[in-house]
Amino acid sequence: MTRLILLASAALIAGGMLAPHAVGGEAKRVWTLNDQLAVPEARTLAIAADGKSAAYVVRVADRESDQTVAVLRHVDLANGTTRELLRARWIDQLNRIPGTTDWSARIDKGDGVQLYRIGANGAVAPIVVHPATAIFGDSEGAVFPGYGHAPLLTGVRAHSWSPDGQRLFHVVVDAMPKSKAVRYDSEVTAERARRRSPGQARASIYLREPGGKDVLLGTRPQSDLTTFFDRSHVRWEKDEVQYDVMEVGADGQQKVVTMAWQFAERKARLLDPKTERVYWLLPGPNGGRLSSQGNDDVRELVETLPGGKTHSYGRFPFAVGDGRAVGGFRSLDGKRAIAGTRTIDNPRFGLAVVEQSGVRTIGGEQSLSHCDFVPSLDHGACIAQGQTTPPAVVTVDVANRKIRRVASVSQVHEAIDPLKVEPRTWVSRHGYKATGYIVWPRGYEKGRRYPAILVTHGTDTDDRFANRENQWEYPVQLFAERGYVVLLVNDPSSRQNTDIRAAYDAWINETRDLPPETLRQLIWLNGVASYEDAVKELVDAGVIDAARVGIAGYSRGSQMVNVTMTNSHVFRAASSGDGGYLEPAFYADVAGSYDAVFGGPPTDPAALVHYRRLSPSLRAAEVCGAILQQVAAPYIPSIDFHTALRKTGVPAQLSLYPGEDAASDETHIFHIPSNRVGAMQENIAWFDYWLLGKRDPGSPFADRYALWDKMGAAAPRCDGPDGEPGG
Amino acid sequence: MTRLILLASAALIAGGMLAPHAVGGEAKRVWTLNDQLAVPEARTLAIAADGKSAAYVVRVADRESDQTVAVLRHVDLANGTTRELLRARWIDQLNRIPGTTDWSARIDKGDGVQLYRIGANGAVAPIVVHPATAIFGDSEGAVFPGYGHAPLLTGVRAHSWSPDGQRLFHVVVDAMPKSKAVRYDSEVTAERARRRSPGQARASIYLREPGGKDVLLGTRPQSDLTTFFDRSHVRWEKDEVQYDVMEVGADGQQKVVTMAWQFAERKARLLDPKTERVYWLLPGPNGGRLSSQGNDDVRELVETLPGGKTHSYGRFPFAVGDGRAVGGFRSLDGKRAIAGTRTIDNPRFGLAVVEQSGVRTIGGEQSLSHCDFVPSLDHGACIAQGQTTPPAVVTVDVANRKIRRVASVSQVHEAIDPLKVEPRTWVSRHGYKATGYIVWPRGYEKGRRYPAILVTHGTDTDDRFANRENQWEYPVQLFAERGYVVLLVNDPSSRQNTDIRAAYDAWINETRDLPPETLRQLIWLNGVASYEDAVKELVDAGVIDAARVGIAGYSRGSQMVNVTMTNSHVFRAASSGDGGYLEPAFYADVAGSYDAVFGGPPTDPAALVHYRRLSPSLRAAEVCGAILQQVAAPYIPSIDFHTALRKTGVPAQLSLYPGEDAASDETHIFHIPSNRVGAMQENIAWFDYWLLGKRDPGSPFADRYALWDKMGAAAPRCDGPDGEPGG
Repeated sequence: MTRLILLASAALIAGGMLAPHAVGGEAKRVWTLNDQLAVPEARTLAIAADGKSAAYVVRVADRESDQTVAVLRHVDLANGTTRELLRARWIDQLNRIPGTTDWSARIDKGDGVQLYRIGANGAVAPIVVHPATAIFGDSEGAVFPGYGHAPLLTGVRAHSWSPDGQRLFHVVVDAMPKSKAVRYDSEVTAERARRRSPGQARASIYLREPGGKDVLLGTRPQSDLTTFFDRSHVRWEKDEVQYDVMEVGADGQQKVVTMAWQFAERKARLLDPKTERVYWLLPGPNGGRLSSQGNDDVRELVETLPGGKTHSYGRFPFAVGDGRAVGGFRSLDGKRAIAGTRTIDNPRFGLAVVEQSGVRTIGGEQSLSHCDFVPSLDHGACIAQGQTTPPAVVTVDVANRKIRRVASVSQVHEAIDPLKVEPRTWVSRHGYKATGYIVWPRGYEKGRRYPAILVTHGTDTDDRFANRENQWEYPVQLFAERGYVVLLVNDPSSRQNTDIRAAYDAWINETRDLPPETLRQLIWLNGVASYEDAVKELVDAGVIDAARVGIAGYSRGSQMVNVTMTNSHVFRAASSGDGGYLEPAFYADVAGSYDAVFGGPPTDPAALVHYRRLSPSLRAAEVCGAILQQVAAPYIPSIDFHTALRKTGVPAQLSLYPGEDAASDETHIFHIPSNRVGAMQENIAWFDYWLLGKRDPGSPFADRYALWDKMGAAAPRCDGPDGEPGG
Repeated sequence: MTRLILLASAALIAGGMLAPHAVGGEAKRVWTLNDQLAVPEARTLAIAADGKSAAYVVRVADRESDQTVAVLRHVDLANGTTRELLRARWIDQLNRIPGTTDWSARIDKGDGVQLYRIGANGAVAPIVVHPATAIFGDSEGAVFPGYGHAPLLTGVRAHSWSPDGQRLFHVVVDAMPKSKAVRYDSEVTAERARRRSPGQARASIYLREPGGKDVLLGTRPQSDLTTFFDRSHVRWEKDEVQYDVMEVGADGQQKVVTMAWQFAERKARLLDPKTERVYWLLPGPNGGRLSSQGNDDVRELVETLPGGKTHSYGRFPFAVGDGRAVGGFRSLDGKRAIAGTRTIDNPRFGLAVVEQSGVRTIGGEQSLSHCDFVPSLDHGACIAQGQTTPPAVVTVDVANRKIRRVASVSQVHEAIDPLKVEPRTWVSRHGYKATGYIVWPRGYEKGRRYPAILVTHGTDTDDRFANRENQWEYPVQLFAERGYVVLLVNDPSSRQNTDIRAAYDAWINETRDLPPETLRQLIWLNGVASYEDAVKELVDAGVIDAARVGIAGYSRGSQMVNVTMTNSHVFRAASSGDGGYLEPAFYADVAGSYDAVFGGPPTDPAALVHYRRLSPSLRAAEVCGAILQQVAAPYIPSIDFHTALRKTGVPAQLSLYPGEDAASDETHIFHIPSNRVGAMQENIAWFDYWLLGKRDPGSPFADRYALWDKMGAAAPRCDGPDGEPGG
């Protein structure tokens, strides 16, 4: 069945994929809602051992099944010929199988996530199929929450091939039967922060030996997050395989230790962390670990050697070690390392080739977001993309640093006439820099003032194509098509000086080193000032109509939207996505974090003072605009904010997008296409209404206009001297 | 199949039931854990139209299936012969069918709750069987929460027969398919207080006409709580049937209105509430509504007539209108009314026969908890029970007020040698009376000091047999068998003077008429003083060992236990069941109530002062004893209290008893027998350990002793001058 779909699909897409530039001469078109939905999420790319082809996985919305599906494609790196090999509910952990031309991957073909072998011809054969009983996802009985996907029944959790392809390390998981036993104390208190009742599972770690026999290396409890989440950090040595596990002490302290399984002796040993430290993350050519040190616009690239000595490669306008950049590679002979980089200004992902002799960079015009190399690291393949460039497969020649475009990843987006997107670094009144982009409305006319929407999500504004981790269900490109100036604005960088870095360190490390006032100012109000000043600059330049400016952001962005709306009177409408951090009701679930931010729980009168200065629901009376919250579950903080807004008369809407069924929820990053379309349409309707006074009788949200009219008529009049509530 | 079980069961119990006093001469035995579990919960009794027999329903724990099952029995009122007619997952709304010798009832035989006809011979035939799609219970997708039962798939919600048995009013419910639509605002905020994601249903009201044809009178939305919960308050008139429905206005205000369906015209009309007011609740012989007026130990029995005039029947040491008493009856000729009564002192349920000529009471030695009468109200049958008397079926002769015992309802409990239970009214240092009982340990020896446990639950301490609404999973009788003096203590009566009544009125009506300090004192600290003084009296009398006193209570009792433990140093161990009212985290779900109690939300600094005086989690440092919380779900308030206790070093345990599966929870009143047994065993282990220092290696909780040892060793030393934390 899958095979049939595969062949049909391969035939259908072949024409488009063969000629990436075919539409170059044709009249191009504008963005549509479907284009927003159809932006593919590149997940992983693996080059064949011979370097002649690569396979990659994208996830795309499938409107017919109303699911986000995974698509596995094969690309001939010489001529770009692209074939769809497989379309399934889930595909990840794509690896080439050493010594063969095949790949392996975890695939859910309908009987849970299992391990399969994929031939270059598209043949899919099982390698490990284990009863899939444990659920990863946002559903009742799931062992761990999901992140942007439907609940995944899981048999195989992780796998890794030995360099010769003769051995296979793999981990399978088994849900424990629902216990009828009483649960106690921390097993109960842990559920305070969880909407869904959790299940329990156990992981079993196996080594498949050259003869094909599976040896059980050990079983691991669910508390071992290294096994359950981090894929064990497997390293293959000549005589043994090393892997990490997390131990949880009686005091609740977590400690990662490294185990090794000796092939000949067939026994396990515990590595001595003092003498056998292994740097698996961002390895350098001297056997150390690469990192970027310092603050400001140029960072020092340093290799920290075993023993603690460091070697500096110099100062560069990029950082390594960013979780969104390509991971680290080290050649078989150890002489060459490749690390993914992210430029400080106009954030773009590239590669640093690090050798004893020095550092060479690859990339520059676009971001290289997913790469793989042949074992020698002489050449490789990447997904390349940019703000205006849809993802494409490229080859990378490491010696001459050449990048060659091979094939489009998303033909449908090649047909769009790119919008004008301008990278910017704004400097606020406080002297803080924030990077980002201006997305200009199509057909922008100088001299005319435009409405504007500012979109923010931490530091996720970078040079990638309509990246959903940044813009969520805010249809940025469609906003620009509809005549909005869109500002994509990052948080002011947390590493631009020691003050702000200290504030972020105190927050992240949950210390009480700094007074709450300092954190409030540097981590939140600083961002508000950046947004206000970025808007002001364009207002002053005659580009933006100051009376028609909105703001949107999810998660970290939702914090910033909520804080902005309760501290600034610049924005007349807001859309806040699936967040609620900073609300008092959330204290017990993030006590350490709130202690750092507020100085204690909200029931401590001394700390309450700080909550009243920062918690959005306690500042509802300051709001001067309409606030939409779109959520994936009925989270208490979002509910409290909405209730406070309505109590103060602020126009507000709280919209809950449902999960697959009563026992599961939509995820933080939405994964149900109909919800995605709905949320984008709701954002369009919301901003069009509150900023432009426009109504679209055809909008699926048209039945809300009457209520919005009523809320708007009864809203606090924002006619104080600075546009604040008053009058 | 049911039929086979029925016959087998009938045969099995016949011997026991025939001779209620058969064991009178034999040596009796002591209470066992199984006796605690097996106390039947009498639910409903319906006399046959000819008055010669009655049917009744009890719910009992079935250990084999680990379910609480409903048992329907038939009693010959002349000779006590009792037959089990049916055993099913659920049986309620037992009614005689006028004009026949049959009964009708809602029964879940495995295909949901449906309406059946039950012959005196035990034959069960369907009357209305509707696809059962709507769930009532504590599970995902349930339309309404449950109360002490497993999730009930429901087809028929309510029914009522016309007095001639020719017409049948009935309500069926249909779940709406899980919507994929976005939910907004109040649909989302409503979920803040709900652990499980709710479903939606619609009710359809039908009248079955004499010919057997069902006419749809109307469909009702889920917001109509009168239809979904109150069984429509059906009243049959000569030409029409009247029933109530709840309308919810656009402003969210609920209003109950009365509809009438005219049989001849086959059309509906809306009753004018001004001219057609109908008193269906506690009807009096003059067509008015009976109630008890005034405070203190004697209440005036008043009939409020249509138009508002009142007629007084005099002052009596009982009240009518208590929800736990027998409901009101009115004879066909209207000349006689029977109202259920509850005595003020030593609370006991009886009957008041109200006629123009005056009032006669029936009952006195035991409680009459469920009654039914023939239409003339000349005679009837009741369930009679008392603190030491297991429930039995009795007949009631209204003319001569005679009560005659007919048959035991629980043969297994007849075999127990009754404990000594002494009714008491305590007067506290503040002059407030609290009623209750002392359950003396078996073989009490004067001069020896005993450990003691005080059990409280609002006003549910009364003269009924081991009533679980009062004692929950605190095995009171087993505690007495094990050598504890058990004090069952009610809250000080809220109607003993105008001050306390005003406080309760302010609380219940959610006004801000009284300062928080007054409510705290009268509604909570007053109770604490009563408990302390009741204990002190027995300590002073040499009965109780002051160093070995515990306290237990669920729901309202859990409030009182938590407040007591954070304000008193008399109790060394506590068990608090499934409660958390007064915790700050609960504010948004009960805002009006907390506003009355605390003066505002905890984020208002002026109100926070009051939270810090009363909320148990904010007073953890005051605790001088070990606190167990047993809960039916991971409720946030219980978690917060536990976390605060442990943070302060107080020995504490939070035990979550699971539901049937991952998608459902145990209920506030536990319904899963294994959970009930476990919770009782845990309470025994907890009090034995913390009060007596006793360990039972055979206890299923024996694996907790090591942790309890550790917590006990690290606990704050309670050696301040008044036993408070200090030293």
